[in-house]
Amino acid sequence: MNAFLNENFLLTNPTAITLYEKYASKMPIIDYHCHIPAKDIAEDVVFHNITEIWLGGDHYKWRLMRAAGIEEKYITGDASDYDKFTSYVSALETAIGNPLYHFSHLELKNYFDYNGIICLDNADEIWEHTNKVFAEKHISARSLMLMSNVKVICTTDDPIDSLEYHKAIADDASFDIKVLPSFRPDRAMLIRKPDYADYIGQLAVVSGIAINNTTSLKEALVSRLDFFVTNGCRVTDHGLDFVPYNEKSDADIEAIFAKAMKSETCSLDEESAFQTYIMKFLFAEYTKRGLVAQLHYGCSRNNNSAAFNKLGADTGFDCIGSQVPYDQLIKFLDSANDNNALPKTILYSLNPNDNAIIDTIMACFQDSSARCKLQHGSAWWFNDHKPGIASHLETLAAGGLLSGFVGMLTDSRSFVSYARHEYFRRILCNYIGTLVENGEYPNDEKLLKKIVDGICYDNADAYFQF
Amino acid sequence: MNAFLNENFLLTNPTAITLYEKYASKMPIIDYHCHIPAKDIAEDVVFHNITEIWLGGDHYKWRLMRAAGIEEKYITGDASDYDKFTSYVSALETAIGNPLYHFSHLELKNYFDYNGIICLDNADEIWEHTNKVFAEKHISARSLMLMSNVKVICTTDDPIDSLEYHKAIADDASFDIKVLPSFRPDRAMLIRKPDYADYIGQLAVVSGIAINNTTSLKEALVSRLDFFVTNGCRVTDHGLDFVPYNEKSDADIEAIFAKAMKSETCSLDEESAFQTYIMKFLFAEYTKRGLVAQLHYGCSRNNNSAAFNKLGADTGFDCIGSQVPYDQLIKFLDSANDNNALPKTILYSLNPNDNAIIDTIMACFQDSSARCKLQHGSAWWFNDHKPGIASHLETLAAGGLLSGFVGMLTDSRSFVSYARHEYFRRILCNYIGTLVENGEYPNDEKLLKKIVDGICYDNADAYFQF
Amino acid sequence: MNAFLNENFLLTNPTAITLYEKYASKMPIIDYHCHIPAKDIAEDVVFHNITEIWLGGDHYKWRLMRAAGIEEKYITGDASDYDKFTSYVSALETAIGNPLYHFSHLELKNYFDYNGIICLDNADEIWEHTNKVFAEKHISARSLMLMSNVKVICTTDDPIDSLEYHKAIADDASFDIKVLPSFRPDRAMLIRKPDYADYIGQLAVVSGIAINNTTSLKEALVSRLDFFVTNGCRVTDHGLDFVPYNEKSDADIEAIFAKAMKSETCSLDEESAFQTYIMKFLFAEYTKRGLVAQLHYGCSRNNNSAAFNKLGADTGFDCIGSQVPYDQLIKFLDSANDNNALPKTILYSLNPNDNAIIDTIMACFQDSSARCKLQHGSAWWFNDHKPGIASHLETLAAGGLLSGFVGMLTDSRSFVSYARHEYFRRILCNYIGTLVENGEYPNDEKLLKKIVDGICYDNADAYFQF
Repeated sequence: MNAFLNENFLLTNPTAITLYEKYASKMPIIDYHCHIPAKDIAEDVVFHNITEIWLGGDHYKWRLMRAAGIEEKYITGDASDYDKFTSYVSALETAIGNPLYHFSHLELKNYFDYNGIICLDNADEIWEHTNKVFAEKHISARSLMLMSNVKVICTTDDPIDSLEYHKAIADDASFDIKVLPSFRPDRAMLIRKPDYADYIGQLAVVSGIAINNTTSLKEALVSRLDFFVTNGCRVTDHGLDFVPYNEKSDADIEAIFAKAMKSETCSLDEESAFQTYIMKFLFAEYTKRGLVAQLHYGCSRNNNSAAFNKLGADTGFDCIGSQVPYDQLIKFLDSANDNNALPKTILYSLNPNDNAIIDTIMACFQDSSARCKLQHGSAWWFNDHKPGIASHLETLAAGGLLSGFVGMLTDSRSFVSYARHEYFRRILCNYIGTLVENGEYPNDEKLLKKIVDGICYDNADAYFQF
Repeated sequence: MNAFLNENFLLTNPTAITLYEKYASKMPIIDYHCHIPAKDIAEDVVFHNITEIWLGGDHYKWRLMRAAGIEEKYITGDASDYDKFTSYVSALETAIGNPLYHFSHLELKNYFDYNGIICLDNADEIWEHTNKVFAEKHISARSLMLMSNVKVICTTDDPIDSLEYHKAIADDASFDIKVLPSFRPDRAMLIRKPDYADYIGQLAVVSGIAINNTTSLKEALVSRLDFFVTNGCRVTDHGLDFVPYNEKSDADIEAIFAKAMKSETCSLDEESAFQTYIMKFLFAEYTKRGLVAQLHYGCSRNNNSAAFNKLGADTGFDCIGSQVPYDQLIKFLDSANDNNALPKTILYSLNPNDNAIIDTIMACFQDSSARCKLQHGSAWWFNDHKPGIASHLETLAAGGLLSGFVGMLTDSRSFVSYARHEYFRRILCNYIGTLVENGEYPNDEKLLKKIVDGICYDNADAYFQF
Repeated sequence: MNAFLNENFLLTNPTAITLYEKYASKMPIIDYHCHIPAKDIAEDVVFHNITEIWLGGDHYKWRLMRAAGIEEKYITGDASDYDKFTSYVSALETAIGNPLYHFSHLELKNYFDYNGIICLDNADEIWEHTNKVFAEKHISARSLMLMSNVKVICTTDDPIDSLEYHKAIADDASFDIKVLPSFRPDRAMLIRKPDYADYIGQLAVVSGIAINNTTSLKEALVSRLDFFVTNGCRVTDHGLDFVPYNEKSDADIEAIFAKAMKSETCSLDEESAFQTYIMKFLFAEYTKRGLVAQLHYGCSRNNNSAAFNKLGADTGFDCIGSQVPYDQLIKFLDSANDNNALPKTILYSLNPNDNAIIDTIMACFQDSSARCKLQHGSAWWFNDHKPGIASHLETLAAGGLLSGFVGMLTDSRSFVSYARHEYFRRILCNYIGTLVENGEYPNDEKLLKKIVDGICYDNADAYFQF
């Protein structure tokens, strides 16, 4: 029996152990997609207890607590931090097979040097142990990032963002981790939202371009894209229910935009046509600048109206979406590609059933402009657990070129979530090590090092070109 | 090599063996969803040979025999019981990897103390061995249940059922296994069936309420629901192609009902609107009474018309249904929840691809009214086999709180199918034991006992509140 | 650790090794579905270097090279064979977990007696080693087939094919491998293709039947079918986006055909109705002749327009298709079955998510006219890798009768792809051996031999009746 969470955690054979110890564990971290506010880093926000770090904004943990039948008061309500902490421990202690069980233990181990089991019997010990660390050390955004051997992170930002905090961090010679913005222009396409015209008004102000038609809208977006690139942006992001392909004439698009700007209600058909139009335009601009596009889709959000009315968005009431119309995604990629306007692109579906189809779609658009130009993003959100990661790796290996994969990201708002890179790397090394031990790949350390170092760091470094 | 079907069957490591021997195997059985006729228990129906028990009504076995190319005469036809038995053995002997291979062996072992292999070479030995047991012992509905350490079963019953047999069993002091009815009101919503008006007429007679509009229909259903609750009902059930959400005005619903009562053909749209209306009403009534709702969906039934015309329904010609519209299921749950009318609910899809989406939907509706208020029902019907059960457990653990799961049920018409609880418990203990052996969960017997006892018995006991 | 690619490749336990060595490896090969041109065998085409064999027309390998970022010049372009070879090696050397990694190694081992690792460091050694073999031996279509212990192959042929090469091979007493045609009448139903009327014209010429309505079209097809059967055809094939069920009146069908023959554009609805009509007719004819029908569906083809315009079809730009409307497939099978016109049928979906649903659909149409009359075809195309094959076997075993499975096929254009039968048999023996070692099936060599020999050879022999 392997002891729980020992140095060989998740590593079930000697090759896996060697690959993790000698290679994977040594590589720094590129976290190319996260939701950390740059402000928190610029101001180096300080944390005061484990509840702040664990339960401050982590809706993954909130969901587990709700499943355990814990009252909302102890989750997002006004209970004390201590009571919230013990409530979380009560939910976690029997959460066998859940990634939060592993994440939480790794976080205590890596950042607080606590090696015990998280359970109610140990709750007070953990509370006191961590409080002592908080008292003795300066536990802040920057200190946690430095402890994690992070080289680069890419935050997720709206085109109207001033990037003032990104600039402040870049200008601060005392802190040399790159904190780069990502360009996520979703709101510029969500013409069915009541605040759409208002948002376009803000975009006009920020860009200094009067927006009265699609031409000026595109000018404003490009102006902001260039501003982002000037501030280090190498990657963009689109969050969508699905990737649409709905071509309409320029005149139709112009009419749809005019309608939206008058705050008239647009149809779903009009919205998807407008998204298609703007996304195709932006993909061409990304391509010109060598940027990477990320497509996140397959999510159903805010499913619990009562909870949404009380707590708002991103509080733990989202789920995997219904069937994605992949014929549209394929046509969108083909159309962009046909115009030499398909940038390096990473596909993320929230539905784990889509793994195989994604890998076969990607292969239709690979070319010599980049190694693994199309990428299948790491097991996303609800799939970010051991079987989900393992399944993604295995499917990608069988249907594509795993050794060219750009690897893990946190997608997180938390400064301790870098532990997930360790989690991923252990699963990766175990997958590779197991193939070698089974005689499915030769025990050639030179090739294995190239594969492991590549997926942990080198591939992302070459792909994003920070 | 492990010997076939020895005491460590399906248990691949010491922790798994310990958990099964010390805990899982000791717990009694709550079979909270089955299709056993209460009449058979009330009258304590007696069995005379293994063919009666195995092939009397078990369309799982019939399908395997048809796949093997066996003539229908030896399956549901007029061949002798001995010939049917040997035909089944001929199909089963090479059915490697099929759950019937395991179920049949466990059934011979547990109820007939036969430990050999089921194959044509042993067919006569098995026939004679079991005949001797039938001759020496009283093998009946009740004796098989008592041998199985069953505490409670929940049958599946129409609202118009008199529950006379349930009452007779409850009144019989010599038999203390609880045999409780479940309320399954599907027929009250199937307005496209030719016998709909006739059925509503029967409901009116049984309830003593004249049904001439939706108000009186709802009164009649509530009257029957209360009658069921008075007779021990704690759980309800809905069998649907998919869970609909199709809101129409009260006036529209009234018109649809009037149309159905005149035996005019309703559209699929009208049917789904009517189902939505009645189900929302019933969910509120279930909530008031603390009852559990079960939703079974994702099935395509009676696919072979020629066979249906000869043999009728439930004879082995059903399959997994096409894509389920999960946006409707989500909206139905949200709408009920928004009205404080979402009872404890168990979701069962026949499509194993839905495992992950179900787990993420559930998490959107958990609250403190019960531990794991929303449940992902045990691997259902065609998924009730080792990989199907293991996949359900792993997905649930990764996406929710496995330790709060209410566990196994037979969904069966057979009195020897309690062997499936053993099957499930072995797979469960092996899953948990493997995680412990791999160092993915601590070897803490107190916590492990809590998890195992919970899933085998305690969780169901607390959830259903029998 | 198992050494890479040793004699126990993919065999992880003693039972698996025994089953492979004693049984599976000894059985000859029936390759009942491939795309080898009969002409190449008739003329015994000779190969001159490894690039010709590996990269001549193998779009599987081309996709891997494109993923690796290799220029098209070195894939399908005018680079030298040596440069193409080293380019492929550069892509392959880190392709861990990809089936091409295994196929390529097995091919070098089995046909060229090269046992080293394929990597850039060894590239020149491999080039020289294989060139020496090409110089010393006669490496041709026939010699490769003879080396592979092939007994029968079924090519894939259009009804208008003259079968001259099949006849020539049959008439050649010096070569006794059966090379049989398969009847694939897709083009007779693709009424939306611009060349449809032209194709029907060719069919008329070849059959000698003037085709001016559906009656004469059906006569012509039957005439060709009988011609194929006369030339040894035992199996047919349909390649479809999905299996349609769209019944229209005979008059409507007649009008659709007339429209198509006038080269007017037919709708998708008209096409699927016409497909339904012709396929139902052909299924009845197949049934009369005891032929096997194959249904391949779930594919999205030619997704990259730019590449299609340069390279044409079947060059590596296809992917798994969107959701299949299984309700139509079920109704099609039911309709055929209801008319006693459902032949032995093999279902292949390109979507691995469909495995479980296929197994449950099949079970609805099994009968005593053949053992496992409905078959779930071996993991197809993008699924032809270790996890894909293993998943297909496990799902089929759990939901049907694995022991009646007709086993592997190459679906290939390559004369070295028979290595995939070895690959499949090793995975099969490992699956079965593992079940035995785990105590899930008895260690009964007589039954195990029956299962293994059956799936490797005997079942196909009995099913197709060559």
